[in-house]
Amino acid sequence: MKGIVYHGQEDFRVEDVADPKIQDEHDAVVRIEKTAICGSDLHLWHGDPLPITGFTLGHEFGGVVEEVGSAVGRFQKGDRVVVSCTAGCGQCSFCHRHLYSGCQKVAAAGAFTNVFGNPLLPGGQAEGARVPFADTNLFRVPESLGLEQALFLTDILPTGTMGAELAEVGFGDTVVVFGCGPVGTFAQRASQIRGAAMVIAVDLHEGRLERAKERGCIPLNPAKEDLRERVLELTHGEGADAAIEAIGVPSLVRDAIDVVRTGGRVSVIGVITADEVPLPIMSGLMAKNLTFRAGLVMPQNHVQSLMPLIEQGRLDPTEIITHRMPLADGVAGYEVFAAREEDVMKVVLTP
Amino acid sequence: MKGIVYHGQEDFRVEDVADPKIQDEHDAVVRIEKTAICGSDLHLWHGDPLPITGFTLGHEFGGVVEEVGSAVGRFQKGDRVVVSCTAGCGQCSFCHRHLYSGCQKVAAAGAFTNVFGNPLLPGGQAEGARVPFADTNLFRVPESLGLEQALFLTDILPTGTMGAELAEVGFGDTVVVFGCGPVGTFAQRASQIRGAAMVIAVDLHEGRLERAKERGCIPLNPAKEDLRERVLELTHGEGADAAIEAIGVPSLVRDAIDVVRTGGRVSVIGVITADEVPLPIMSGLMAKNLTFRAGLVMPQNHVQSLMPLIEQGRLDPTEIITHRMPLADGVAGYEVFAAREEDVMKVVLTP
Amino acid sequence: MKGIVYHGQEDFRVEDVADPKIQDEHDAVVRIEKTAICGSDLHLWHGDPLPITGFTLGHEFGGVVEEVGSAVGRFQKGDRVVVSCTAGCGQCSFCHRHLYSGCQKVAAAGAFTNVFGNPLLPGGQAEGARVPFADTNLFRVPESLGLEQALFLTDILPTGTMGAELAEVGFGDTVVVFGCGPVGTFAQRASQIRGAAMVIAVDLHEGRLERAKERGCIPLNPAKEDLRERVLELTHGEGADAAIEAIGVPSLVRDAIDVVRTGGRVSVIGVITADEVPLPIMSGLMAKNLTFRAGLVMPQNHVQSLMPLIEQGRLDPTEIITHRMPLADGVAGYEVFAAREEDVMKVVLTP
Amino acid sequence: MKGIVYHGQEDFRVEDVADPKIQDEHDAVVRIEKTAICGSDLHLWHGDPLPITGFTLGHEFGGVVEEVGSAVGRFQKGDRVVVSCTAGCGQCSFCHRHLYSGCQKVAAAGAFTNVFGNPLLPGGQAEGARVPFADTNLFRVPESLGLEQALFLTDILPTGTMGAELAEVGFGDTVVVFGCGPVGTFAQRASQIRGAAMVIAVDLHEGRLERAKERGCIPLNPAKEDLRERVLELTHGEGADAAIEAIGVPSLVRDAIDVVRTGGRVSVIGVITADEVPLPIMSGLMAKNLTFRAGLVMPQNHVQSLMPLIEQGRLDPTEIITHRMPLADGVAGYEVFAAREEDVMKVVLTP
Repeated sequence: MKGIVYHGQEDFRVEDVADPKIQDEHDAVVRIEKTAICGSDLHLWHGDPLPITGFTLGHEFGGVVEEVGSAVGRFQKGDRVVVSCTAGCGQCSFCHRHLYSGCQKVAAAGAFTNVFGNPLLPGGQAEGARVPFADTNLFRVPESLGLEQALFLTDILPTGTMGAELAEVGFGDTVVVFGCGPVGTFAQRASQIRGAAMVIAVDLHEGRLERAKERGCIPLNPAKEDLRERVLELTHGEGADAAIEAIGVPSLVRDAIDVVRTGGRVSVIGVITADEVPLPIMSGLMAKNLTFRAGLVMPQNHVQSLMPLIEQGRLDPTEIITHRMPLADGVAGYEVFAAREEDVMKVVLTP
Repeated sequence: MKGIVYHGQEDFRVEDVADPKIQDEHDAVVRIEKTAICGSDLHLWHGDPLPITGFTLGHEFGGVVEEVGSAVGRFQKGDRVVVSCTAGCGQCSFCHRHLYSGCQKVAAAGAFTNVFGNPLLPGGQAEGARVPFADTNLFRVPESLGLEQALFLTDILPTGTMGAELAEVGFGDTVVVFGCGPVGTFAQRASQIRGAAMVIAVDLHEGRLERAKERGCIPLNPAKEDLRERVLELTHGEGADAAIEAIGVPSLVRDAIDVVRTGGRVSVIGVITADEVPLPIMSGLMAKNLTFRAGLVMPQNHVQSLMPLIEQGRLDPTEIITHRMPLADGVAGYEVFAAREEDVMKVVLTP
Repeated sequence: MKGIVYHGQEDFRVEDVADPKIQDEHDAVVRIEKTAICGSDLHLWHGDPLPITGFTLGHEFGGVVEEVGSAVGRFQKGDRVVVSCTAGCGQCSFCHRHLYSGCQKVAAAGAFTNVFGNPLLPGGQAEGARVPFADTNLFRVPESLGLEQALFLTDILPTGTMGAELAEVGFGDTVVVFGCGPVGTFAQRASQIRGAAMVIAVDLHEGRLERAKERGCIPLNPAKEDLRERVLELTHGEGADAAIEAIGVPSLVRDAIDVVRTGGRVSVIGVITADEVPLPIMSGLMAKNLTFRAGLVMPQNHVQSLMPLIEQGRLDPTEIITHRMPLADGVAGYEVFAAREEDVMKVVLTP
Repeated sequence: MKGIVYHGQEDFRVEDVADPKIQDEHDAVVRIEKTAICGSDLHLWHGDPLPITGFTLGHEFGGVVEEVGSAVGRFQKGDRVVVSCTAGCGQCSFCHRHLYSGCQKVAAAGAFTNVFGNPLLPGGQAEGARVPFADTNLFRVPESLGLEQALFLTDILPTGTMGAELAEVGFGDTVVVFGCGPVGTFAQRASQIRGAAMVIAVDLHEGRLERAKERGCIPLNPAKEDLRERVLELTHGEGADAAIEAIGVPSLVRDAIDVVRTGGRVSVIGVITADEVPLPIMSGLMAKNLTFRAGLVMPQNHVQSLMPLIEQGRLDPTEIITHRMPLADGVAGYEVFAAREEDVMKVVLTP
């Protein structure tokens, strides 16, 4: 079958890769119908060359179950599914606590290719994929939904949702979301659904800010107005209740700390490649009694609440799709996405 | 000045009452511009005659501060305010915990007339009122809002909001709200704003169900379809995550327990006059590991989050007002409200 | 093998029963080394005759794994284990939410015999037992612990712990625990470990109250002093923060509501056989803004925290064992336990 | 009266200072009977010279109310009290949320001298002090307690307690506490009372570790054994559930992040004078889905739970007092404390 393969920085190729096969009784094999390029894939595209090449990319995909191992109890051939980007075994002490990102078994066995470039498990920018511990890592797509509507449950929709959750966004809150890209958009949507009275959307792209405004956010371009002053003005001098960094820029983490009020909450969901980020513990976190959280997404914890919101029409995740292409043109997809033009939000590929 | 005075069952009269005066250094006197008739006032209208008569009714009102005692720090003459129906002293151990309904000092000193008919503190269906512990029990109305928009912060908007809070309504939940009257309407709105994917609105009035549907709820008339079966059908056989009783009928409390799933939450905000309600502890609450809560509203705990939601336009509390009259016609207002015609939701009086 | 078999009210017999066998790939067979008689077994001993007889009793047991089905991943022959009294499949939507008591699959397939007398799954007052969904329902006993120390993790230790959790007992709280039997004892211990400043232990047995006092509780015999007055006296007139009903008597549920303060929490973990219990919703739950919870235990949710407390010596569950007998004398064990003499707390049987 | 006055680095003097007087109707004047030297006072002793000199030091003190302003409602002359080190006005939007450290009114009006050297409000290492907003910032000492038992409610006991709270230490947890000084000791005690199964106490002083062991902690000297390896060994390879930094050393904050498990919580209560601390957001906080909190203590939020724990004897805060001296010898007290000999924990001065 065909897949997009990593050969180095800016050298991705659509080529023949091995067909996925059941290797363990908990595995499933999925025939892929939709697969997306994630912002974190761009870290591999732009980043330092990895020591290993030749692996298949992609961790946002779904399709139809083609085969299941003997111990898989919840799924069978023919089921329409999307796949969690973070895999867990479902039974270790971390998975029992719903902390799938800490699963030791999966860490040992490999995970889908992501920002860390873990090459042990072939990714899903391909015509098919093997999914380990299928009962834990597959999500059934209800009949009422098209596959594209459920596709982002694999990663970025739960990531944005987690951003709002980690920042404890709630009823009547004012929240500042740094970034109006795909993850930022979903963090804004999740904040609104959780009851925020005011979502302040920060970005440098005027077009993106315009769309944020259409979504009911208050746009803020820090190149044009003073970030801190504007937030204070909007919050009667108090500062925001919460802030979400959804881009991955160290200075924005400090800005997030800066704009929240005493007792505020800051979450970081943008991928930061810097080893360490200097943070004002005393004058920022301590003096303002802040809660600060960062996290890897565990879609398993969000599907049960997100699915009905999509089914009931309170959320339409397809709003971020700007480009649709065949998988065969996947390299062009990467090029378009990497150019970061303002009107490129999300590229979905169809094998 | 004029006020509506209790003289017995269905015998309320607009007559001259004493002008309010500062009696304690923490008091404020408010000149009333808007005052509403609450569903709980009807318990007095319809209920057994009370042993005491001659007191002024009303606990949903607002206006302009006319005078403040020497210890009042947050308000001054001329401030536009609405008044909390539950008063607290602000300093006892209960008030410190934000449990104003448990305030011993206010219990001893009297409270606004309400369902319990406490006559010690004259009510607010009048041209003015004295408000004890003004710093704790007055809420400032922002310039951007009209008084009517803030009026229901005195009682029923926080009551509906509390219903959703006590039932822990959250992101992606399905919630059943019993009642589409003023409190039920606000419980539905609060549930939506807190992130419910599906709000099932239960009522016997088709017109009210129709309006609930327009608000995005799923209407359910238990006279026309089986309540439990319909809820199970809408929730894939699981039952609802939460249920809110917003009318005050004992059998509906049992229905609320019946329609939620294992691990569900039930709140009761409707006023129940029965001494005791038989509940299925073993087969209902215990077998399903439920959380059950009831409560008196403490508007002080909700204003800080509700006010920005109103200011930002996510919530328009005036949607329930169906009748506006002068205070002088207040008895007619009671008669209209007591008739419980389907299209009567809320009567607002203007002195 | 031998087991204790139900033949009707006060007619239990030790007799030959079928050997347990693997019937499903998720099963395990356990050779039983310790098994206990639970207070809820007494409901069967004393209760109305059930329509079905001939089933093996018992749901508090542990021993050594003898065989596992092919899909069992976490356990193997030779592992020392105890068994959860509430079984879950581990994969349905309820089990995913850690609400094992709501598991539909197990409800359909049967559960260990308990107060409900469900006879579909042979119980553990026997020399061996089949355990369904072993990965979810077995708990490994650490080498540092004897089997008796872990035995009550099967049911009553998590039940008492859950009582404190449902009543949200916390740092500095005053809590009233109704009952000083095995479950009450553990509810008191759990309350102390969660940080209660004062645990008021209520019972009619002076000997049990004496032992509660030795555990650091304040004893209260409602036959000798007024319950409500004494609690108010101990709490500076405020009432307790929380109350736990650990016996199963309807009037004590009302007492629990009566002794807590505004904003208090009440949990019911005692088994109540009455169909319905009349509760003061308006004057009790609503007027005091209470949280009320009841629940079936799900040991799976407590083992991860209880095990280290036992290992570190903060908790010694064997303190309640007053009688040890061979399984062959199990009927005598029931008779001793059923007599409810004050100094009989827990009977442990050894096959 | 006499007080200890700041004249520069290592230049503190006992000298005559102005008598405290009521300046505002919410003030109280307290005659001081006990006052302590705090670790944060040492930052002033050792630190860079401040631009202002001549102010009275001290923020851990208590005594007897001598006079109250006209608006003070909860206290009167003769009441035994201790004083909160963090003052709030009690009425602004931050105080209403119990976020006294964010009180704008007090920030504007000055606060007791602390690590920041704010000189506007004379401190309490003196014979008396004026306390602003007395109703909010005084705590009554129950008759059953001596003043020394309540003295540390002013600052370090709530600080240690807050450390455990911010790290969400709970039932069955393993927690690593960095530091066995006064604050660390209280963080360990609070962790135990909140239900930790294992408290790992980290320090370089063997004597302090020995005393931590006597308190039931597991001592760990990172100069003698590898911190991370030892924690992993004690936690079956998982890492600790929580960690509390109670010293104020940037590298220990990173160690705290390093020793907790996926899903763990880290709190910082040690005072860090560095402007910024480099933290591993990606590899530490994000990869492990951590919660990170720092905070200034607000004793108002802890007294209601700590007082009964002291009264019931679950906690004896005087355990840390190693030196008692007259106020007149206060400079010697600073010298002893500043030498940081292992057996010096806390110096209490008596005017």
